[in-house]
Amino acid sequence: MNTIGHLINGTTTANDSRQQEVMNPSTSAVIAKVALASRATVEDAIAAAEAAYPAWRDTPPIKRARILFRFKELLETNADKICELITREHGKVLGDAMGELQRGIENVEYACGIPELLKGEHSRNVGPGIDAWSEFQPLGVCAGITPFNFPAMVPLWMWPMAIACGNTFVLKPSERAPSSALFIAQLGLEAGIPAGVLNLVNGDKEAVDTLLTDQRIQAVSFVGSTPVAEYVYRTGTASGKRVQAFGGAKNHAVIMPDADLDSAANALMGAAYGSCGERCMAISVAVAVGDAVADALIGKLKAHIAKLKVGDGMDNNNDMGPLISRAHLEKIRSYIAKGIEEGAELVVDGRDLKVTGFEDGNFLGACLFDKVKEGMTIHRDEIFGPVLCVMRVRTLQEAMEIINAHEYGNGTCIFTRDGEAARYFSDNIKVGMVGINVPLPVPVAYHSFGGWKRSLFGDLHAYGPDSVRFYTKRKAVTQRWPASGLREGAQFNFPSND
Amino acid sequence: MNTIGHLINGTTTANDSRQQEVMNPSTSAVIAKVALASRATVEDAIAAAEAAYPAWRDTPPIKRARILFRFKELLETNADKICELITREHGKVLGDAMGELQRGIENVEYACGIPELLKGEHSRNVGPGIDAWSEFQPLGVCAGITPFNFPAMVPLWMWPMAIACGNTFVLKPSERAPSSALFIAQLGLEAGIPAGVLNLVNGDKEAVDTLLTDQRIQAVSFVGSTPVAEYVYRTGTASGKRVQAFGGAKNHAVIMPDADLDSAANALMGAAYGSCGERCMAISVAVAVGDAVADALIGKLKAHIAKLKVGDGMDNNNDMGPLISRAHLEKIRSYIAKGIEEGAELVVDGRDLKVTGFEDGNFLGACLFDKVKEGMTIHRDEIFGPVLCVMRVRTLQEAMEIINAHEYGNGTCIFTRDGEAARYFSDNIKVGMVGINVPLPVPVAYHSFGGWKRSLFGDLHAYGPDSVRFYTKRKAVTQRWPASGLREGAQFNFPSND
Amino acid sequence: MNTIGHLINGTTTANDSRQQEVMNPSTSAVIAKVALASRATVEDAIAAAEAAYPAWRDTPPIKRARILFRFKELLETNADKICELITREHGKVLGDAMGELQRGIENVEYACGIPELLKGEHSRNVGPGIDAWSEFQPLGVCAGITPFNFPAMVPLWMWPMAIACGNTFVLKPSERAPSSALFIAQLGLEAGIPAGVLNLVNGDKEAVDTLLTDQRIQAVSFVGSTPVAEYVYRTGTASGKRVQAFGGAKNHAVIMPDADLDSAANALMGAAYGSCGERCMAISVAVAVGDAVADALIGKLKAHIAKLKVGDGMDNNNDMGPLISRAHLEKIRSYIAKGIEEGAELVVDGRDLKVTGFEDGNFLGACLFDKVKEGMTIHRDEIFGPVLCVMRVRTLQEAMEIINAHEYGNGTCIFTRDGEAARYFSDNIKVGMVGINVPLPVPVAYHSFGGWKRSLFGDLHAYGPDSVRFYTKRKAVTQRWPASGLREGAQFNFPSND
Amino acid sequence: MNTIGHLINGTTTANDSRQQEVMNPSTSAVIAKVALASRATVEDAIAAAEAAYPAWRDTPPIKRARILFRFKELLETNADKICELITREHGKVLGDAMGELQRGIENVEYACGIPELLKGEHSRNVGPGIDAWSEFQPLGVCAGITPFNFPAMVPLWMWPMAIACGNTFVLKPSERAPSSALFIAQLGLEAGIPAGVLNLVNGDKEAVDTLLTDQRIQAVSFVGSTPVAEYVYRTGTASGKRVQAFGGAKNHAVIMPDADLDSAANALMGAAYGSCGERCMAISVAVAVGDAVADALIGKLKAHIAKLKVGDGMDNNNDMGPLISRAHLEKIRSYIAKGIEEGAELVVDGRDLKVTGFEDGNFLGACLFDKVKEGMTIHRDEIFGPVLCVMRVRTLQEAMEIINAHEYGNGTCIFTRDGEAARYFSDNIKVGMVGINVPLPVPVAYHSFGGWKRSLFGDLHAYGPDSVRFYTKRKAVTQRWPASGLREGAQFNFPSND
Repeated sequence: MNTIGHLINGTTTANDSRQQEVMNPSTSAVIAKVALASRATVEDAIAAAEAAYPAWRDTPPIKRARILFRFKELLETNADKICELITREHGKVLGDAMGELQRGIENVEYACGIPELLKGEHSRNVGPGIDAWSEFQPLGVCAGITPFNFPAMVPLWMWPMAIACGNTFVLKPSERAPSSALFIAQLGLEAGIPAGVLNLVNGDKEAVDTLLTDQRIQAVSFVGSTPVAEYVYRTGTASGKRVQAFGGAKNHAVIMPDADLDSAANALMGAAYGSCGERCMAISVAVAVGDAVADALIGKLKAHIAKLKVGDGMDNNNDMGPLISRAHLEKIRSYIAKGIEEGAELVVDGRDLKVTGFEDGNFLGACLFDKVKEGMTIHRDEIFGPVLCVMRVRTLQEAMEIINAHEYGNGTCIFTRDGEAARYFSDNIKVGMVGINVPLPVPVAYHSFGGWKRSLFGDLHAYGPDSVRFYTKRKAVTQRWPASGLREGAQFNFPSND
Repeated sequence: MNTIGHLINGTTTANDSRQQEVMNPSTSAVIAKVALASRATVEDAIAAAEAAYPAWRDTPPIKRARILFRFKELLETNADKICELITREHGKVLGDAMGELQRGIENVEYACGIPELLKGEHSRNVGPGIDAWSEFQPLGVCAGITPFNFPAMVPLWMWPMAIACGNTFVLKPSERAPSSALFIAQLGLEAGIPAGVLNLVNGDKEAVDTLLTDQRIQAVSFVGSTPVAEYVYRTGTASGKRVQAFGGAKNHAVIMPDADLDSAANALMGAAYGSCGERCMAISVAVAVGDAVADALIGKLKAHIAKLKVGDGMDNNNDMGPLISRAHLEKIRSYIAKGIEEGAELVVDGRDLKVTGFEDGNFLGACLFDKVKEGMTIHRDEIFGPVLCVMRVRTLQEAMEIINAHEYGNGTCIFTRDGEAARYFSDNIKVGMVGINVPLPVPVAYHSFGGWKRSLFGDLHAYGPDSVRFYTKRKAVTQRWPASGLREGAQFNFPSND
Repeated sequence: MNTIGHLINGTTTANDSRQQEVMNPSTSAVIAKVALASRATVEDAIAAAEAAYPAWRDTPPIKRARILFRFKELLETNADKICELITREHGKVLGDAMGELQRGIENVEYACGIPELLKGEHSRNVGPGIDAWSEFQPLGVCAGITPFNFPAMVPLWMWPMAIACGNTFVLKPSERAPSSALFIAQLGLEAGIPAGVLNLVNGDKEAVDTLLTDQRIQAVSFVGSTPVAEYVYRTGTASGKRVQAFGGAKNHAVIMPDADLDSAANALMGAAYGSCGERCMAISVAVAVGDAVADALIGKLKAHIAKLKVGDGMDNNNDMGPLISRAHLEKIRSYIAKGIEEGAELVVDGRDLKVTGFEDGNFLGACLFDKVKEGMTIHRDEIFGPVLCVMRVRTLQEAMEIINAHEYGNGTCIFTRDGEAARYFSDNIKVGMVGINVPLPVPVAYHSFGGWKRSLFGDLHAYGPDSVRFYTKRKAVTQRWPASGLREGAQFNFPSND
Repeated sequence: MNTIGHLINGTTTANDSRQQEVMNPSTSAVIAKVALASRATVEDAIAAAEAAYPAWRDTPPIKRARILFRFKELLETNADKICELITREHGKVLGDAMGELQRGIENVEYACGIPELLKGEHSRNVGPGIDAWSEFQPLGVCAGITPFNFPAMVPLWMWPMAIACGNTFVLKPSERAPSSALFIAQLGLEAGIPAGVLNLVNGDKEAVDTLLTDQRIQAVSFVGSTPVAEYVYRTGTASGKRVQAFGGAKNHAVIMPDADLDSAANALMGAAYGSCGERCMAISVAVAVGDAVADALIGKLKAHIAKLKVGDGMDNNNDMGPLISRAHLEKIRSYIAKGIEEGAELVVDGRDLKVTGFEDGNFLGACLFDKVKEGMTIHRDEIFGPVLCVMRVRTLQEAMEIINAHEYGNGTCIFTRDGEAARYFSDNIKVGMVGINVPLPVPVAYHSFGGWKRSLFGDLHAYGPDSVRFYTKRKAVTQRWPASGLREGAQFNFPSND
């Protein structure tokens, strides 16, 4: 059986004593083992990154960019292979894997523009004969800790821009779906990233804690659940690092009486059930304004759900694959039970689903709750599964109060045709990413990704312009030259260079 | 005796049970008492700021700017009075107070440009018919905690930009020199800042801890010593806030063999002894490259120091006033003793200074150490007094290694005529603010202020462009409109507004 | 009788042989004479500006900005006097004059941010050890030629930013309404603008041609009619200058079936008849989508017009003052006759208006045409008077085709509640300034003003960010320093500065 | 014999009645014929571009960028072939051709970042509830007219960015070296540029005049000699187009007494003689400060010239190839004769050079003049050949006065180690592109290229950020939404979409 190891200083290693099984969620079969890095292994990776830093920092940005141009080509050439790695370990259907990869590639494309993005600010004559400018210099060794649900994309949010800025990097991908990130990192080296500039360690809490406390690490980017994000943020900042930690979400879609209901229902299907709802930008709550809207919407959703194909992700005819693990499946089932217990109406129940030939897979059919209310567990918690909750309100204001009162503030959207409703909503909603008739308002790669409230710990958002600021620090230079007499023609005895 | 109170919701109050004496450092006379805010008082201020937030947030930025235009006028009209308040409590000579105020006004001038500075990024057609833009929205209630050494300027780094961005503010100035910040805040209200938008509380650790932990405070800016900065950063971030905490410094000037030594020596006098060295951007170490440079430099410095006039700050003929307190004077004396003990040569000893008529003032004459070495306490610690240390090295590289190895990385400068030396230095030195023949490289108001290493905890620098990012959070909106039939001429039954 | 002269090198002069009468359009009384500058007089002004340039160019931008801060205060202090000067010569009601001045002040406020706006772009390591940056340096002597209809505002679009950028300036305001621009220029000097940096000449074609062909003038900004704009652009560019020439307009408002008709009608009243329609951003065509909309709109407009008060501009109870001249009044009357002749329906006829006590004023009541069609003279030409044309179409597409086919492309707006209609319109309309439910979409001072098609000759728009680019030229510097041995410790025999 | 034709709407055609010979300058052999487009042919190309515009304009920028990513790959894959086409027709050595191509590719890389570069400015709450933003929309059909000396690079300055911005394009390359531009355009189509978006016509003045006057062309970019640039600018602007026309140059290098003379001499060899001096950024005048510098510099240059290998460009052992044509060779010979006649000292005479086996080639050896003075023809005119003039001055000031007085202001450089001299020079020299110890200060692709004075007609520079502004026009939108009652819960009878 294959053991998935680390990539340190250009070399693949897997010498650690501890390992963990990697499973195919469609079958629950063990398909590989993954090495779990010890503190010493992680320190090796950090040491490699530190050694590679000075030369990489001094490599002109345009040369760093050109490696990323080649890397983009390799990602496209190897797209099918990457998607298979994603699907086999994560379970999402191949089309979703391709969508994920495409989003990752967009971040590489953005990082190719690093010469423009790194420009500093120059001021002539801040005083008589005095100039000043600000540069954005790299930080040193940076680390990324990424989740299972976008095993290819989230690492690509981080390290291409970090190294484009002149940093070196240690990536710790999810140990539950490690192969695509490793393969992609190897493509990076193939594209010309020098050994040591990009390193990858697989591991668990021991690896994470090493990254969070080692004094050579300057910055940490994290994506995961809110409790862990908060831990990462506190631990990393207490260790003097720059940290951005992206946590959980509970994303509400508001459906107004004037919405195009057909397209809203269609959009919600993808937003709620795509990738089995295992997305921090999934819509998990639909807030219908008016009972008429709620009734019509539920009718349309039920019709769509009836046609939803759930099965093995390698079969692209399927719309939805399995959940990541048996434990996660059980957790979601308990949420569903809790929802019923607390009084919500389960109008579509996906719990009895059987997928022929994949009886041991972690499958769950799409579930739809109606009459969900504030205070219910299924409204408070992030379920991270194919469960959509419908809430009923009378006004937009009421919908917005529910959203603004929620712990999370990652994404939200409104379906309406009305300019005023959309503007009022986008202006006043306390959420970082807002869609207007766009169900999954993940910003494109040249804007930045970040939630508000407890969905993000840190000042700067992921990817896009903010990521340039996150992976660099400002240096302000003020310059005045003393009169030398040279230009006035004084005949000093200057050193000859003959 | 006057009791200096708080400014909460437009009203001055001083009902707290605890008070502290404010002293004139030139005489050690008690000149006022300052109220020390209880938790309840600080919470009142926060409540006032929170109540004022929604209307202020929705006030167009240009209207907020216009209040700052008027505020700038009031600062200029009242400059003499402000400087007297600074000098009486802090001790610095009036000319230094005016310099400080001028730097503060520059930050107000910069904040007047907020309509330009707040511009977000707009992208048409991120997909077919889909637009996206990012806005920079205010955070809510922000707080500032400021030090005694620039009692007028540092508050002006913070709150004008914070409120220009649409936030409301609670300022806690130094309880040792509180009057100028309070008077300036009152001028702000006179200029038109609505009651509650800007609040000020005087206080000590109880006030600080309240600000750091109250859930209504979204962001904290702090300037002070590194241990407190670190405490503020850890406590504030653990409480989920955005924090920027500026700490201590040990700023080195490198003097190259080709430097214009006259102007370097002259510049060092101001940079080392101005405001008694109580500046986080003071030059406290001169690193001479070559013994010839060191000898010549010391000769020039000794001649300058012999002419330095030390005395009451209200007399503008003086160059240097007293230290802030008796305790601080004793601390510096103990550093000087330690320097001698550890082997440095005290070539100018200012400890015997007496100022006639001000025998109880906290005066200390300028001190100059030669042959200071790495590892000595006087090189490791920030002394924050009129003590300049000369170190001797053979090459620029050696000088830079000393600087790069130091705990702090706030400011530094190089004196040279050589383009290559200057560029190598500014590029590779691990310090946030660099001067080339500029002894105090405090960036102008339209660049940003921030050190590296343990001189700053946080991602974003003070004032200038970074402060706009610090006091706002990004909101990304993605928008698509469904076809409505309206523009194609469909005759829907639209609501009439007659 | 007062003779209005020139302001050259800080001195007021009026020695020219030619003069012209300035009249009060409410009474047709001659109220002053204005000197018409000869070529020699204009050359004196240019010479003064050229002489003042080197020192002004080297004045740090922040110091230039501070003069503008003071200038803004003076404009506010003197607002009433400026408005009287405007109204007496132009005729617009005092409230319109104040609105105009306020718009002008906004441009001064924007120019106060020049240190930020002038920032260049800095790139470290464009190659190994090579840095590059781009600066925006001033051009030299610039000129502005401005129209009668905004005698205070349009000059303030130009010269404050031009001089903020480090240029010196010669302004030639309209000889029909010269006093406010002259008084404002004097306030500029009072604020601290050095003599020679800002000069003003009154004059006619001789002055214009001198400015357009003198080799010392680097750039010309012009606002006026399209034929003159085109002449200015051709002549100035042929003489090697940078030119931006703003011409005429025919601004259409589209009223959709779902519009808020009450607010649309209300908005149209101001947009069509404010300042007697003598505005390049006036709405002169209302395109109603559907006959029902047209009928309802006309009903509302007629009711509003019935209440419109026309009279002397010095009486602020009036809504509309006289036209600028008898000749202009006659020209508009002939347009109205032509409109009737070509088949449009004059549903409100303002031609019989008499203003008691001002029988010799150039008054014309508000006129409203219905059933105006493409091809009619009143649709093709810019009338520049209180004449609003209503066109009737069936779809938005049809409305847009009319607008896109028109010679001019200055401003336009749409009244709708529908997001999709608004976005389709703003995206596809071939007009430079677009309002969505905003009748006069004049961009705020921190965006830029400019039409498309034959409404603007030149690449860069007026005021806002574009004006910084217009009044500066890019200088790109690429820098590498040869190894000197200095920093490695080589003991060269450097010049001593003792 | 091959006839080089046009590329119109995706198809290659060559039906024109007029043709011209294309020659190999190393042999004077005719190697192909090039079709000279008639007015009708050019109009076909314009029509194709106009037809392709609407769909291309609406293609999201990221999709346009992705075609450019592929195009970059194709340029790299086909680099050898492109360089052969350049060398065969132009004559420059293959290494120079590769350098040229690399510079061209850099512009494609920059254009790949178009989603970032096209971002507009967004302002929330310019008034209560009013938002404003500015977009940069494409112009329509643009044209480029490019010179023989960089047959691959200059077209790549233009059309990749023009089409990245959403425009369509008609390129007219030099008819003397047409093959590389045509082949590159075909690669563009292979990469995915739709037929009609990019068109190419070969031709002469008839083609140029058609492009300059056809009303469908919105913008013209031109590179060539100053007289033609001026003609293009006047004709194009008179026709209402946006024009940037880059003309001639006379670039001076100042060599200071403290310069690193070895590296300066070495740098000058490439800058003066590379590509036979047929570059608008070639250094054609070396201004030595002090006779000692002049003597030493000339000594070093003579030694270098003695080793310079001149011959067929296809042999990469050569340093310098032939001139473009016999006529051009004769023109340069007459300049040399004129220089001698006017009193300059020809210290190296390259006129007797014979290249064995290439006796009919247009070869000229490197020439070096000493004691050139202002007023001489060889100082006034751009020679565009391998002729370097040395001038002798006593001070930097004197050198700068010579440069500032010259008609051209394209590029210049200074060789010095002294920070003050470099800063004074770069600040005050009236030249658009400045090198400090960089002989050919061509800005990198992410800054912009442009001279001052009569080296550039137009406001905006080539490539880099300015090219985005040149190929787009600003549209300012101001938006307010009327209250609809919708979000307050009013139950209007909205249209159903079922």
